[in-house]
Amino acid sequence: MARRALGPATLAVVQAVDAALTPADARLLVACSGGADSLALAAAARHVAERRGLPCAAVVVDHRLQDGSDAVAARAAHAVRGLGLPDVAVVAVTVGTRGGPEAAARDARHAALRSAAAGAPPATVLLGHTRDDQAESVLLGLARGSGPRSLAGMAVRTGGLLRPLLDLPRTTTEQACAELGLVPWSDPHNVDSRFARVRVRRQVLPVLEEALGPGVGAALARTARLARDDADLLDALAAEADPGTDTLDCAGLAVLPAALRSRVLRRWLAGRGAEDVGAEHVQGVDALVTAWHGQRGVDLRGGTVARREGRLLWQAVGRG
Amino acid sequence: MARRALGPATLAVVQAVDAALTPADARLLVACSGGADSLALAAAARHVAERRGLPCAAVVVDHRLQDGSDAVAARAAHAVRGLGLPDVAVVAVTVGTRGGPEAAARDARHAALRSAAAGAPPATVLLGHTRDDQAESVLLGLARGSGPRSLAGMAVRTGGLLRPLLDLPRTTTEQACAELGLVPWSDPHNVDSRFARVRVRRQVLPVLEEALGPGVGAALARTARLARDDADLLDALAAEADPGTDTLDCAGLAVLPAALRSRVLRRWLAGRGAEDVGAEHVQGVDALVTAWHGQRGVDLRGGTVARREGRLLWQAVGRG
Repeated sequence: MARRALGPATLAVVQAVDAALTPADARLLVACSGGADSLALAAAARHVAERRGLPCAAVVVDHRLQDGSDAVAARAAHAVRGLGLPDVAVVAVTVGTRGGPEAAARDARHAALRSAAAGAPPATVLLGHTRDDQAESVLLGLARGSGPRSLAGMAVRTGGLLRPLLDLPRTTTEQACAELGLVPWSDPHNVDSRFARVRVRRQVLPVLEEALGPGVGAALARTARLARDDADLLDALAAEADPGTDTLDCAGLAVLPAALRSRVLRRWLAGRGAEDVGAEHVQGVDALVTAWHGQRGVDLRGGTVARREGRLLWQAVGRG
Repeated sequence: MARRALGPATLAVVQAVDAALTPADARLLVACSGGADSLALAAAARHVAERRGLPCAAVVVDHRLQDGSDAVAARAAHAVRGLGLPDVAVVAVTVGTRGGPEAAARDARHAALRSAAAGAPPATVLLGHTRDDQAESVLLGLARGSGPRSLAGMAVRTGGLLRPLLDLPRTTTEQACAELGLVPWSDPHNVDSRFARVRVRRQVLPVLEEALGPGVGAALARTARLARDDADLLDALAAEADPGTDTLDCAGLAVLPAALRSRVLRRWLAGRGAEDVGAEHVQGVDALVTAWHGQRGVDLRGGTVARREGRLLWQAVGRG
């Protein structure tokens, strides 16, 4: 591959990988499903690694959620070896149920990837998420309505995971595969409308583009980046403003800007027994602070309640 | 109306108006188009005003954009008088072209409303925007991709304008009109798919609800409120961090969190000649600060360019 001229789409993927790497990335590990995104990523990573003189391996996670998943994984590993990456491991995982099927699969996959990346130096794990995946994440977060953090989508880099293709449309990875003569695997889960992400991809995004123009995908990805920057700063400011006490003083909270107050309350709720704190819980407790007229406590998930007594907010086991 | 028991939807509109008013609202002026939202609002405002002993009038703005708009305005005024609000003015305006047809109509309408509200004490202008309007605004802002400020939708209160119905679905105002025996006017513009807002309302939102559930409208409205709180705080912090100088020092900018740096750059660009500053301009200038490798300047709208020389950023007339 290095000896032939690269096609334009492959070149775009190579440049995206190259631009995302820093001198701290001493060893690369490509997570490959056999789909177009990760196959194009593997081809590009091999190219960049060779040019930079970095070791580069790949890992295929077999989620064992579909019959024949082992054969799919073996085929993906074979395709990656054909790209000139001989060091390919297939890791079978057991997917739990916590957080729903998509979150459980992701958790199992990430655990396997982190384990495969361990070593000295640890490998940087490259993931093939594209701008389309990011746009889908933003729309899913929007439907949750939990504010900017839920719009922030996926980070380019988090822990040892790197997503170099977040600014590229999926069509570029598909075109790169065509240029490279690769036949990607089509995951049947990608067209299974039981998954909210699939419904967003196949029903919502096309209608959004038709109604508002073809720039919607890029706009959603830009929104994710800006929302992430904002959420990072506001979370840091909230951590500074959080007194870290079991009870909170309403007078002190009331003078905080709303954006900080809601985050301090969310930290306090989540740090003292409440589970799965939602925007509606934060809003209810905020009303105890800013619109106090002796109302009852706010029932939280996990069997606790937040109450106001005098100037103080406190949490206890029980109902409001 | 005050003598009969209120229907449940009418009661919900009355409660929303009542909850939104503060003691500073000494005089009410309902902006009424004759549509379901503003007719229900007028009925509720009359009710609340009577109970609170406040003067309440209404104004119908004739945008003169459609043949027979004067007859529509007269019919709306007649309907409002029938609700027991005798003080109704019809104001004809001339809609310009600046910012597109929707923005130009809004600007002309708001100018007429502010003028009608003038006096001692000035009237609080009540607008009938619902949660559905807010959800549409969020999706339109999302498609622009300019970050949280463009997701912030409409404020409940801004200047002398008050939107008490932003948490109520449009179906509630329609049901209130039915309860009150009112036949609202259906603006043909509301089904004219030349308008992006109409395409969002009729094409995008139904598909979004089908894909992600009926809570999407409420989630979008919640996103708007949270995004507004965040944007307000971050804009205030950026105003503090803005040195207000003609040139900016890149070393000082580089140490700011990304969320603040982008806002300081946006303020600086907009305050020194650049017109209609977009996220792509801010991103380009941000790269001059954080990813400097001697690149050329960033061309801005309005015929100016932002350049880096040494440690300094400056703007000049010309091209990059």
